[in-house]
This record gives sequence, structure tokens and C-alpha cells, in this order.
Amino acid sequence: MTDMLARRAALLGPNVPTFYKTPVHIVRGADVWLWDADGRRYLDCYNNVAHVGHCHPKVVEAIAEQAAILNTHTRYLHEGILTYGERLIEKFGHDLEQMIVVCTGSEANDVALRMAQAVTGKTGFIATDNTYHGNTTAVSHLSTRRPPIGGWPDHVRRVPAPDSLEPLGGSLPAQPEAFAVHVARAIEELEDAGHGFAGLMVCPIFANEGMPGVAPGFLDPTVDVVRRAGGLILCDEVQPGFGRVGAAWWGHDYLGFAPDVVTLGKPMGNGHPVAAVVARPDVMRAFREAFGYFNTYGGNPVSCAAALAVIEVIEEEGLVANAHDVGAYALEQLRGLSHPLIADVRGVGLFFGIEFARDGVPASSFCETVTERMKDRGILLGRVGRAQHILKMRPPMPFGRAHVDMLAEVLAEVLKETPEDA
Amino acid sequence: MTDMLARRAALLGPNVPTFYKTPVHIVRGADVWLWDADGRRYLDCYNNVAHVGHCHPKVVEAIAEQAAILNTHTRYLHEGILTYGERLIEKFGHDLEQMIVVCTGSEANDVALRMAQAVTGKTGFIATDNTYHGNTTAVSHLSTRRPPIGGWPDHVRRVPAPDSLEPLGGSLPAQPEAFAVHVARAIEELEDAGHGFAGLMVCPIFANEGMPGVAPGFLDPTVDVVRRAGGLILCDEVQPGFGRVGAAWWGHDYLGFAPDVVTLGKPMGNGHPVAAVVARPDVMRAFREAFGYFNTYGGNPVSCAAALAVIEVIEEEGLVANAHDVGAYALEQLRGLSHPLIADVRGVGLFFGIEFARDGVPASSFCETVTERMKDRGILLGRVGRAQHILKMRPPMPFGRAHVDMLAEVLAEVLKETPEDA
Repeated sequence: MTDMLARRAALLGPNVPTFYKTPVHIVRGADVWLWDADGRRYLDCYNNVAHVGHCHPKVVEAIAEQAAILNTHTRYLHEGILTYGERLIEKFGHDLEQMIVVCTGSEANDVALRMAQAVTGKTGFIATDNTYHGNTTAVSHLSTRRPPIGGWPDHVRRVPAPDSLEPLGGSLPAQPEAFAVHVARAIEELEDAGHGFAGLMVCPIFANEGMPGVAPGFLDPTVDVVRRAGGLILCDEVQPGFGRVGAAWWGHDYLGFAPDVVTLGKPMGNGHPVAAVVARPDVMRAFREAFGYFNTYGGNPVSCAAALAVIEVIEEEGLVANAHDVGAYALEQLRGLSHPLIADVRGVGLFFGIEFARDGVPASSFCETVTERMKDRGILLGRVGRAQHILKMRPPMPFGRAHVDMLAEVLAEVLKETPEDA
Repeated sequence: MTDMLARRAALLGPNVPTFYKTPVHIVRGADVWLWDADGRRYLDCYNNVAHVGHCHPKVVEAIAEQAAILNTHTRYLHEGILTYGERLIEKFGHDLEQMIVVCTGSEANDVALRMAQAVTGKTGFIATDNTYHGNTTAVSHLSTRRPPIGGWPDHVRRVPAPDSLEPLGGSLPAQPEAFAVHVARAIEELEDAGHGFAGLMVCPIFANEGMPGVAPGFLDPTVDVVRRAGGLILCDEVQPGFGRVGAAWWGHDYLGFAPDVVTLGKPMGNGHPVAAVVARPDVMRAFREAFGYFNTYGGNPVSCAAALAVIEVIEEEGLVANAHDVGAYALEQLRGLSHPLIADVRGVGLFFGIEFARDGVPASSFCETVTERMKDRGILLGRVGRAQHILKMRPPMPFGRAHVDMLAEVLAEVLKETPEDA
């Protein structure tokens, strides 16, 4: 382990963090399980990318089979991208009928931004002040982690993210309208500054913002504001998509609004680097007329085979219904936990969290200790929220009721054993 | 075929070109061969991404094996990225000892730009006026195809690309110095405009510029100019790298200069979406301190297994020496072709071209007809150059002398049969 950390630092340089204070050396995965080099088994309650389960045999076989036959780009005709695309598009409403296949969610969001520019002829964007949509230069401008060299670009405006402890507008019911008011103000600023307004990029369940209790209808006032201003709704479905929200295939359908552009990330290929942008034909046309975009390995036969297998597994194994059922059961079980620092238990489908706070103040250090101790007890979780005080649970989709029971049981023990001032 | 084109247009939208007037429907690949749906076999003289040959069994097996065991991100420790990285870094000199693994060449170049910003604190970039380095928003600013929405960004300056028909400085021997003079002027402009100079991004063999006869030493005067101005040399090895130039593993070592940052693209994984940025530790440190960069699937175990297999195949099959030998033989054979429109035959290793012109005027249409007819005769080629008048040949690395003979023989016939005004 020490040796691996030293080799890693020598090879990758500084500031390449691992999860956990003592990192985990994972060597094998299957279904909802990961194993470390000592043979210890972990229940994976965190990794959404292995969407249909780690190393799902059907996806592995699809990749292996197609990789042995042909892997090339889309300047030649191939059945793979057509079959896959037609299956994918069936899952969408709102005239979202066309797609571009790329390799990463970052590439997808980078394209989505340009689609909004192409349609509107404007360059201004809005995102929340506690989000992350990817790592290209253009997309990382939407994040708030660190200022880019040369300073923050003027054409991106950040609006306050919805929050559960300190809701916008002073109360949870007031939050949807209050969020829309902030968006309207940012649009005005972009117009006054001469950039104009191209679009709002948003995750429909505000996953990176800590999933602050958004419910159907939450974004309706915001969507109205964006539409009236002539901008586009760029909907980042990298986390909620492919049935994770349980009630629907997509977060935007769960919330009940019509995006102009939807982006999909690597859960699409169960970890194989494939991602996509889905858009209305009028939006696609504007983009395709403005840019000569080509992605060498976007839509190659192997990526499409992996992605097709993922859709088939979701359907064959009833994973959307499972996310709905098991997600509800998880909320029920976790809400049964009693602890003075539990401020909220919330979630949708197989994406849920527990917020820790004392008198409205985030209990970050307690949350961190719980996460570490859960790992030591064989359960992998993450953290999210402005103060990293929310336990983040986002397991592979075959997660079942027995896994919830195990999670809830161990968590109850860890909560009992962990001092409140840990 | 008609049906596939209609489905493609319905699904992908307009302006998604295929190669050739009548596109090819490729269904299978092996070694240097591709097969279409009618069972016709094509000699692949174009696709560099299938670097060690289409569907190389060793790469396919590495992918299949690792995909069945584990595929997850680098926030956990894993041997794969370490073993691969250590093998890769061995191939580099110039203190290029650290790396970031990403998924595409575009992502790699997008990171390289930010490395130069982080080191210099400046934002200005230089590229040639006939290049392509990738498709992210930031990287596509270096390309010249179409203006971005909002206009060309002021912080990118384009210098005239080296050219074979109209060399900079008026003659081929004068070209290296003349290119450097243009770069020096652009640096001055960037400084006058207040951006300052961060770096020059360049392919060492000017692959997209039509490979205008660059030889060892070509970039020396330019490198001097860049160094004196405090900027970085960002060397895009997506095309020349991994031994394609024959004389060395990397284009910059063939030319004989020391880059600050090197980027690698999908030939690295024989088509599996894996790419990388290699840099000196001081450059990596500056980047890692300025940006919190994480790429979910960059460096995952499957990508690293694919990439490791590629290095092993290159070594086991002696593909760098093969590129050197067969490349020289190809030049010899192609120079034996006699045709009034052949203005130049040039290349390095397994990257070579034939330039068609009449009295110094590019013969674009003739070149296109030849490419189409070669395809009809079962040989896949591409075109490059400002006027698309240069036959571009960049076959998989196991290309042998027998394949050269076949190429030269069919090309001789097609040249004879094709009217000069075709």
C-alpha cells in the first residue's frame, strides 16, 4: 500500500486524491460488491458508473465480442450506432430525437454548451454555485472549485444552489420560486453585460448540490423564466439518468419538465467510456450547421455494443422498478435510524442521503468519521454538500432490499459508536 | 445502404459526413484489413487508431479479461495505472516523467492548454492556421474550420502553416526559420494584447497540415523562440506517436527537440478510448496546484490493460523497426510511380503522402477521384492539405512490404486510368 502510494505520487504528481484517509486497494468487482487486495468484500453504495452492477456478464460479453470483430469510427456506416441510437431515443419524449455519441460526460456537456450558443447566437451561461458538470476548460468554468487562470470568465453567472438547511426564499416551499428569481436576475446580468443568455445547465435532481429535496415541479418556475428569455435548458442526466430516479428513466421526466438538450455519461456503458448528447432536431441542426464536430471514437461499434447491453439489462432485470421499490424501502429504513445529528433523510430512487447537522450547522467532521468507519466495516459511501456533511448513497442499480438492510444495520451500529464530536 | 443512410440522418441529424461519395459499410476488421457487408476486403492504408492492427487478439483479450474482473476509477488504488504508467514513461526522455490519463486526445489537449496557463500564468496560445487538435470548446479554438459563436477568441493566434508548394520564406530550406519568425511575431501580438504567451501547440510532423516535408531540426528555431519568451511547447503526438515515425517512439525525438508537454490519443489503446498527457514534474505540479482535475474513467483498469497490451505488441512484434523499414520501402515504391500531376512523394515511417499539383496549383479534384477509385479497387486512403490535394496514407503499424506492393500496383493502375482533368 505504501509502495503503491509512493509509485502513484511519482507517476501522477501531487494533488491526486484518493477516497478515504487510508485508501482502498480494489482488485475485483461483481454486482454490488467490490473486493480489496486482502480479499475483504465491500458493499458498494457509492459507484453509479457501474450502473447495472460491476462487471455485468452481459456487458462484458458485448464488449469482448464486438472488440474481436470490429472497432472503428463513424465515418464508415455501421449498424451498431443505429440500433443503439434507435433504442435510446425511444426512451425520450419532448421531441428529443437525435443524438451525438461522445466518450465522456465532460465532452457531452461541452457540446451541449455549444448547442445553446448555436441556437441562440448568445454566449452567456448559468449554473449553480455548488455544482460540477465536468472537466473540460469550457465546462469547468461552470464549476466553482477554483478560479481558472486569467480569472472567472464574465460569460458564466452562478446562481445560489438550492439548499436544505438554508433554503432559498427562507423556506422549502418558497425555494422553487426563489431559485427562478435568481436565474432571472442572472439572465438580466448576462444581457446587460452584452453576452446575452444562451442557457442554463442543471442536473434535474441537483445531485452535486446535495440533492436538496427537489420534487416534481421544482424547476417549473425556472423553466418558464429560461423559456421567456429565449435560452435553452441543458439537462445533465449523468447522475439521475438511466432509471436511477426509479419513477422514470430520466430525472427531467420525474420532475416533469421538457429540456432542450440532455447529456448522458458513463453509466450509459456501465463504465466503458461512452457518453451522449440527446437533442431536438432543430437544436441539432443549429449545432451541426455552426460546428464541424467529429468525435473519433464517439459511437464506435464497441461503445455502442456496451451501451446497448446496458439498456437491455435494465429492461430484462427490471432495474427501473427495482430502483423505485428499493429506493423507497431504503428511505423507510434510514428514516428509522435515530440520532441527534440526523437533520434529514431524503432521496429519490437509488440516490439517497443523510444530512448531519446540529442546530442547523453542518456536522462535517462527524459525517467524515462515519464514512471512514463504514468503509472499515465493509460499506462504501461518499459525501456531498457544501460542507461535505451529507452521506451520499448512489449504489449500482441491482441494489436490493437485503443490501439496504445490511447498510441500515451497520450504519445504526456506527452511528451509535461514533462520538457526536468525532 | 440507402436505408442505413436514412436512419443515420434521422438519428444523427445533418452534416455528419461519411468518407467517400458512396460510403462504405464496414462490418469486420483484422490486422491491416477491413471487410464490408458484402464480404469485400479492403487494405486499410488510412486508419492510425487501430495502431497495432484491427482487433489485435492480444489487445482484445486484455480488454475482455480486465472488463470481467474490475473496471473502476482511480480514487481507489489499482496496479493497472501504475504498471502501465511506468512502462509508458520509460519511453520518454527530457524529464517527461509524469502523466494524466484521460479518455480522448481532445481531453488531453484541453488539459495541455491549462498546463501551459498554470505554468506561465498567461492565457495566449499559438497554433498553425491549418490544423486540428481536437473538438472541445477550448481546443477547437485552435482549429480554423469555422468561427466559434461569439467570434474568434483574441487569445489564440494562428501562424501560417509550413507548406510544400508555397514554402514560408520562399524556399524549403528557408522554411524552418521563417516559421519561427511568424511564431515570434504572434508572441509579440499576444503580449501587446495583454494575454501574454502561454504556449505553442504543434504536431511535430505537421500531420494535419499535410506533412510538408519536416525533417530533424525543423522546429529548432521555433523552440528557441518559444523558450526565450517563457512559453511551453505542447507537442501533440496523437498521430506521430507510438513509433509511427519509425525512427523513434515519438515525433519530437525524431525531430530532435524537447517538449514541455506531450499528448497522446486513441492509438494508445488501439481504439479503446484512452489518451494521456505526459509532462515534466514541475509542469504537472503547477497544473495540479492550479486545478482540481479528475477524469472519472481516465486510467481505469480496462483502459490501462488495453494500453499496456499495445505497448507490449509494439515491442514483441518489432513494430517501430517495421515502420522504419516499410516506410522507407513505401517511399521508394511510390517515388517509382510516374505521373505528370505527382508534385511530391514524402513521408516518415508509416505516414506518407503523394501531393498532386499542376504547375504549383493543387490538383484537388484529381486527388479526390483517385481516392474514390482506390476505394472501389479495395484500398482505403484519405486526403489532406489545404486543398485536399494530398493522398494521405497512415496504415496500421503491422503494414508490410507486400502491402506496399499491392498499394503501389493498384495505385499505378488507377493513376493510368484516371484522366488528368478528372
